[in-house]
Amino acid sequence: MEKSHENEHPIKAFGWAARDTSGVLSPLNFSRREIGEKDVQFKVMYCGICHTDLHQIKNEWGITKYPIIPGHEIAGVVTEVGNKVDKFKIGDKIGVGYLVGSCNECENCTNDLENYCPGQVLTANGTHSDGTITHGGYSDLMVVNEHFIVHWPENLPMEAAPLLCAGITTYSPLRYYGLDKPGMHIGVVGLGGLGHMAVKFAKAFGTKVTVISTSISKKDEAIDRLGADSFLVSRDPEQMQAAGGSLDGIIDTVSAVHPIFPLLNLLKTNGKLVMVGAPEKPLELPVFPLLSGRKLVGGSAIGGVKEIQEMVYFAEKHNITPDVEVVPMEYVNTAVERLVKSDVKYRFVLDIGNTLNKS
Amino acid sequence: MEKSHENEHPIKAFGWAARDTSGVLSPLNFSRREIGEKDVQFKVMYCGICHTDLHQIKNEWGITKYPIIPGHEIAGVVTEVGNKVDKFKIGDKIGVGYLVGSCNECENCTNDLENYCPGQVLTANGTHSDGTITHGGYSDLMVVNEHFIVHWPENLPMEAAPLLCAGITTYSPLRYYGLDKPGMHIGVVGLGGLGHMAVKFAKAFGTKVTVISTSISKKDEAIDRLGADSFLVSRDPEQMQAAGGSLDGIIDTVSAVHPIFPLLNLLKTNGKLVMVGAPEKPLELPVFPLLSGRKLVGGSAIGGVKEIQEMVYFAEKHNITPDVEVVPMEYVNTAVERLVKSDVKYRFVLDIGNTLNKS
Repeated sequence: MEKSHENEHPIKAFGWAARDTSGVLSPLNFSRREIGEKDVQFKVMYCGICHTDLHQIKNEWGITKYPIIPGHEIAGVVTEVGNKVDKFKIGDKIGVGYLVGSCNECENCTNDLENYCPGQVLTANGTHSDGTITHGGYSDLMVVNEHFIVHWPENLPMEAAPLLCAGITTYSPLRYYGLDKPGMHIGVVGLGGLGHMAVKFAKAFGTKVTVISTSISKKDEAIDRLGADSFLVSRDPEQMQAAGGSLDGIIDTVSAVHPIFPLLNLLKTNGKLVMVGAPEKPLELPVFPLLSGRKLVGGSAIGGVKEIQEMVYFAEKHNITPDVEVVPMEYVNTAVERLVKSDVKYRFVLDIGNTLNKS
Repeated sequence: MEKSHENEHPIKAFGWAARDTSGVLSPLNFSRREIGEKDVQFKVMYCGICHTDLHQIKNEWGITKYPIIPGHEIAGVVTEVGNKVDKFKIGDKIGVGYLVGSCNECENCTNDLENYCPGQVLTANGTHSDGTITHGGYSDLMVVNEHFIVHWPENLPMEAAPLLCAGITTYSPLRYYGLDKPGMHIGVVGLGGLGHMAVKFAKAFGTKVTVISTSISKKDEAIDRLGADSFLVSRDPEQMQAAGGSLDGIIDTVSAVHPIFPLLNLLKTNGKLVMVGAPEKPLELPVFPLLSGRKLVGGSAIGGVKEIQEMVYFAEKHNITPDVEVVPMEYVNTAVERLVKSDVKYRFVLDIGNTLNKS
């Protein structure tokens, strides 16, 4: 008899799952693997709703295996540890992001870049080494290898769980591409879950920040609410031209196809345009601006576990938290609908610990 | 009376010029400016024929001012110096590249990056601060501000003048993008004037070099003649797939529109694709490979004067010279025709000093 999600593993668990491409989530009994010697079991307290979750629950990338329990911005509290776990003890606050496994052997893994390991295991809808499908944080408990868990800082609220994906996705490129030097001038394209975190981190690094958006309507919130220094309407050629050559770097969070020539024009010599959104179709890349100003277009995807740990401590130190709307578990389908319409500032976070009820 | 090219300046000079879009060059009497206090006058000994010269003489970029005397890979000997010149004395061997002037005030200029100064003055077909048009190295003598002149190393043959453009154009990005570390694996796309210099510099830095070309016909010369370690036929998808993820960086010298997805696929995590050729139309940039491997596409254009000086000393130390076919001045039109057909290994150099005869 083929094992069901409910009995394929020994530990009983409960969560909310999408069962088909309608994307509607509903309660599901399932199971978690036995606690291995390097595994940590924890109770999920909060879990962010990321755009990736939307793609997954509706199978928009064609790779979803139903039922899917999404969620990869997870803050929780340790409830049990394997006998060779040395980083964590029962009662510790912890965080888990986009990955729960990798090959541990490749050059990326040995350089703390599990996020670029070809053998990485996604936290939700990934495939474990035993062939079973992973289930994410929209659930009561999880069992994860300690390597993929970070300590949650004492003075950081656990509702800030979106740091674990939206946060690291913007922190990591600011660091790697050297856009973290005080006095630099950084642009942030798009003001959603990713963009608003990019603004906060760039400000904390001591840079001047300009938000670039298609609509003037976001100007006040960019400046007054998030602390950006200035604002550019990308559809206003005069404004864009006047700001030419003023930026050291740009974090581009837009995942729709869009023109990058005007963005390259905003960069100084040696300027860097870093994509963290993933348009499905190729962009048009004019080569001359790259040559004449030694500019580059780069990419970056989440971050390694070591850097996630560094980032949450940085966030604690600088009081950086995502702007979130905390909602109960039963609100998830409404939240998904609103997220599709970008009707949230800037991230929904499910209050799993207090509102996920089995009955 | 409007001044002619022959009498607009006080110093009589002689060279070969194109007079119209036919691109045919013929002898021309013209004039050079008075020697200013920071100026150096020198006799031209050798001048390389660069692809840019072709574009200029036929006005393919629409900005040529006829008559045009091309040439920006120039080795010569000092014949006179202004009274405030301190870097050079009569009899010194010197070199001049793509630029003879810049604004001297912008951030690029103060950082030894005159090559990215918006006010740069091209050596040929550029516009001086006095409004006159610059004339290049296909001529008997030149007058240039000492800042834009480099010392020619004692043990470097002067026929190696193409180092001053083709050389620096490949040396500079290998340095700037950190592709100069022993043990790295570097790809070079295209095997012409630029490509063959990229191979030589990359080998001198201690890297492993793979030449990537559309045609297998260049394999033997890449490996046997230039010392490359391996060769990939870019039109062979199996070969390209098998080499996936093997390169730390690529210098792409191709100036025709071409697909870059297969090149990005050759790069390791953190790999860098650097364009030094300038396709006129935009390339297709797939974003996902940038994200999933933190890769980048960058550009680079020639190099600053300080770096050119560093590069020619490096070339001397490592016995790096371009492979050249030295030809007399009268051969220039034939050389241009052959260059259009890429019928040269790898650069024509005009023996100006011995063959430019006024009569």
